[in-house]
Amino acid sequence: MPIQQTVLQQQTRGRGFYRLDDDIEAFVRTSGMVSGLCNAFIQHTSASLIINENADPAVQNDLERFISDLVIDGDSRFTHTAEGPDDMSAHVRSILTQTSLNIPVIDGRLALGTWQSIYLWEHRTSAHLRKILLTISA
Amino acid sequence: MPIQQTVLQQQTRGRGFYRLDDDIEAFVRTSGMVSGLCNAFIQHTSASLIINENADPAVQNDLERFISDLVIDGDSRFTHTAEGPDDMSAHVRSILTQTSLNIPVIDGRLALGTWQSIYLWEHRTSAHLRKILLTISA
Amino acid sequence: MPIQQTVLQQQTRGRGFYRLDDDIEAFVRTSGMVSGLCNAFIQHTSASLIINENADPAVQNDLERFISDLVIDGDSRFTHTAEGPDDMSAHVRSILTQTSLNIPVIDGRLALGTWQSIYLWEHRTSAHLRKILLTISA
Repeated sequence: MPIQQTVLQQQTRGRGFYRLDDDIEAFVRTSGMVSGLCNAFIQHTSASLIINENADPAVQNDLERFISDLVIDGDSRFTHTAEGPDDMSAHVRSILTQTSLNIPVIDGRLALGTWQSIYLWEHRTSAHLRKILLTISA
Repeated sequence: MPIQQTVLQQQTRGRGFYRLDDDIEAFVRTSGMVSGLCNAFIQHTSASLIINENADPAVQNDLERFISDLVIDGDSRFTHTAEGPDDMSAHVRSILTQTSLNIPVIDGRLALGTWQSIYLWEHRTSAHLRKILLTISA
Repeated sequence: MPIQQTVLQQQTRGRGFYRLDDDIEAFVRTSGMVSGLCNAFIQHTSASLIINENADPAVQNDLERFISDLVIDGDSRFTHTAEGPDDMSAHVRSILTQTSLNIPVIDGRLALGTWQSIYLWEHRTSAHLRKILLTISA
């Protein structure tokens, strides 16, 4: 089966988590691929991808709290401040998480664990349109 | 050569590092694949995968010490505490490390550097049975 | 199209960022691959790979400043000190970033976003010759 690619667009409303499972799963289904890998690649340096617990929304709140205390908006050590206090912190947050993720496909479905979901993590405080490239290879 | 997949199970005895090289290498050998990539994907959000130095056990001790000081069990900022003080910290530790790893295969072997090994990092303090999906593609 | 692999060597001058886009792009071009994925894998545990903003050099300075304050050279908690104060800190910095990256290839080119570049991040203070394995699969 030849490789298949598409572009997924996600409009964000600013900092937070946006679940991508359904959109990625739909592309896997359409591709007809039974066994293989699905790569998700976000074409930005101030938003990232993570696989995280999907049952309790408190996990996301705690994760945001942790990272925003670790990487402080407007930190006086940062010199790259052209786009505001969340500019450089967004780049650091991206570096500490993922730009590219590979998920196995088994029996035509993403082989995520019971509690796993794929999230886009928007690190900027304002709304952005984000592009994620999906590549399916078998 | 068609894609090949298997499930690797690793019983942990609680927080710590569990070397996976031999089990993954065995699957690569059995597959007969000469050149390609091997993906390892852990189906959990409170254990993760890393590639780390394998010669001096002190590296693992120092790494555990660093992360447990950075992500504090029972941190009063965490609200997701249903499963105890190591619950939310395990999720954060997973986010800061890897859920999915791709390793090149060359001449029928994992092309790890001299000092590199693949570890499952159990972040929960109690024992768990962990599933890692292996996918080989050429 | 069969899988294609090569070894990219990068001489570093010590701690800092070394842009790899042109070398990886050249390999993609030579391969003749139109659509697929390119994996970059660094065979070391004290240097890593990141995808980061490429327009303003201040981003790199700020990122180095952030991580060197987070992971302190010569930290008295570290016991793996055989190779000096930047030895264990380099391992921790590697764990918090990436050893392996997958980038989509579209129309025969790396499908990086406008502001994205691929960097080798040398974490040791002295110069090193680093090996990065490139694998292209379609």
